[in-house]
Amino acid sequence: MNKDNNTNNELTSLKKLETKIVSGMRPTGALHLGHYFGVLKNWVEMQEKYKCYFFVADWHALTSEYENPKRIKTFVPELVKDWIASGLDPEKSVIYRQSDIKEIAELHLLLSMSTPVSWVERCPTYKEQQQQITGKDLATYGFLGYPVLMTADIIMFRSKLVPVGQDQLPHLELSREICRRFNNFYGEFFLEPEALLTKAAKCPGLDGRKMSKSYGNSIMLSESLSDVEPKIKGMLTDSKRIRRTDVGDPDTCNLFPYHELLSSQQEQTEIRQGCTSAALGCVDCKKILLKNLGAFLEPMQERRAKLNDKVLYEIIEAGNQKARIEAQKTMEQVRKLVGMN
Amino acid sequence: MNKDNNTNNELTSLKKLETKIVSGMRPTGALHLGHYFGVLKNWVEMQEKYKCYFFVADWHALTSEYENPKRIKTFVPELVKDWIASGLDPEKSVIYRQSDIKEIAELHLLLSMSTPVSWVERCPTYKEQQQQITGKDLATYGFLGYPVLMTADIIMFRSKLVPVGQDQLPHLELSREICRRFNNFYGEFFLEPEALLTKAAKCPGLDGRKMSKSYGNSIMLSESLSDVEPKIKGMLTDSKRIRRTDVGDPDTCNLFPYHELLSSQQEQTEIRQGCTSAALGCVDCKKILLKNLGAFLEPMQERRAKLNDKVLYEIIEAGNQKARIEAQKTMEQVRKLVGMN
Repeated sequence: MNKDNNTNNELTSLKKLETKIVSGMRPTGALHLGHYFGVLKNWVEMQEKYKCYFFVADWHALTSEYENPKRIKTFVPELVKDWIASGLDPEKSVIYRQSDIKEIAELHLLLSMSTPVSWVERCPTYKEQQQQITGKDLATYGFLGYPVLMTADIIMFRSKLVPVGQDQLPHLELSREICRRFNNFYGEFFLEPEALLTKAAKCPGLDGRKMSKSYGNSIMLSESLSDVEPKIKGMLTDSKRIRRTDVGDPDTCNLFPYHELLSSQQEQTEIRQGCTSAALGCVDCKKILLKNLGAFLEPMQERRAKLNDKVLYEIIEAGNQKARIEAQKTMEQVRKLVGMN
Repeated sequence: MNKDNNTNNELTSLKKLETKIVSGMRPTGALHLGHYFGVLKNWVEMQEKYKCYFFVADWHALTSEYENPKRIKTFVPELVKDWIASGLDPEKSVIYRQSDIKEIAELHLLLSMSTPVSWVERCPTYKEQQQQITGKDLATYGFLGYPVLMTADIIMFRSKLVPVGQDQLPHLELSREICRRFNNFYGEFFLEPEALLTKAAKCPGLDGRKMSKSYGNSIMLSESLSDVEPKIKGMLTDSKRIRRTDVGDPDTCNLFPYHELLSSQQEQTEIRQGCTSAALGCVDCKKILLKNLGAFLEPMQERRAKLNDKVLYEIIEAGNQKARIEAQKTMEQVRKLVGMN
């Protein structure tokens, strides 16, 4: 019975490793704690369970940065550096650059032929982002086709799962439709990608707003504890707790969310008790956080120290090669199905 | 003086040969006399003056044939067969298949990023063809992007001239704008393609309507004189000329336009005189045409007899290789300019 169970478990875990996941990130800037807890932490965990494809979405970056794209390139190795510092392992996952896999452009073109223009026009992002991102002209043919390119990214590796948050479900639904339509015309070839709903832990900025580099309220993944220390020390805590002897409320404190992310359950309980009883002062509370933040940032720093551009480009090129082999296999089949072989 | 003139002429002709031309045709069916006089005759002449790139536009064919694309493939060698039978020379011109040059898909993707969606929406063909071609759903993202793909085709080989008819000038103007916008963002790299206005000789169908396979009024380029003879013999001439002794009017005759295309000036003059004076009967008039049609079709038949699928695919593959080398060179530069290298 036990033995059977073990075998089943092994089979399950083997099957999971065969399940492919694909996800990408745009190389448009250095990553901060918000990115880590929102995305990268999930990615690092997924590596143990699935066959993962993580890509630097530089063509996607071009949809919004086409007027001044040169900086995209400089962010490519930086992004991968942040990834690997965060725990992505190029031995476990395929890390590649989108624009190095030319097959994606070909699949994008083929998918574009069978995708109704009304579908992409209806995509919620298309109009949303045009309204939100001011100062950039996003009314381009390429930006409109973003869901087509995203679908090519996903289905190219015949991945079953795509890690998405609740808000991205409509995009994935569109990708599923584009994929389904292709399969209807040319044969059941592509797996319809399914959502792997990920819980993105919320990491607010130092001032309680959304963490964003442009707000100056971020802790970057590349920062050392000594960089971060003054930022933490300068943080506003519960604004109603004026004297050391006043009791505080962790739920209206800018600091406590970081404890929820970085401190142990036991510490969190003790801090909550200490704060609400005025037994623990904000200075000491910050010291606990700094200790835990140090423990979090230190291995990142260590991994980062081993990385330079040469190493990073080697990692990307090795990943590209793996991705390219699979993409070529996929496209051989696709061309046959469409009759473009 | 004479010597100088010769040198100048040589230089001019050398310069012309350096001027590149690109043009394509969709592999959607066998070609007829209308295609020859409308397009191919010009192409054959251009070979002597320019460095020509002629491509089988199978990705373009997909914009309208995506629901049932398998037949596109069968028409690829057939199209090239018609071309070579008509006098295109693979030694003089680069004959290639669009979908074999993957760089075009990449350039298409890059151009899509900087092309305003309003430009492609405004393209006259987009709405026209949607209205004209019924029974096919052309409201696709790919069909909308047809001008972007066409621009990639043209500028990839940095060709200076594009042979177009008057009616296609708006499309070329759009390509010029797409090209100009790219150059504005990333540097003056691509030649803005210019129109080489070609005079397409009009070749009506056997019944006087537009020649079209679906009307059953065509003479296919693959037909032999014995195939064509009964068609010509069955043609209606001037419907007012009922008796042999009645005078006829070449300008209302279905046959005379063929004389204008296939018979010598002297013959045309004699026929006009004979017809309008009733000296020449329709039966004899048709005999003259059949003689000239035979002289026209015979070399086509001879060239065709030497072609089989193996030879045709070798021709295409040799052209692909030439085209690919140039496309790769172009894309190396383009990637550098955009920062995607």
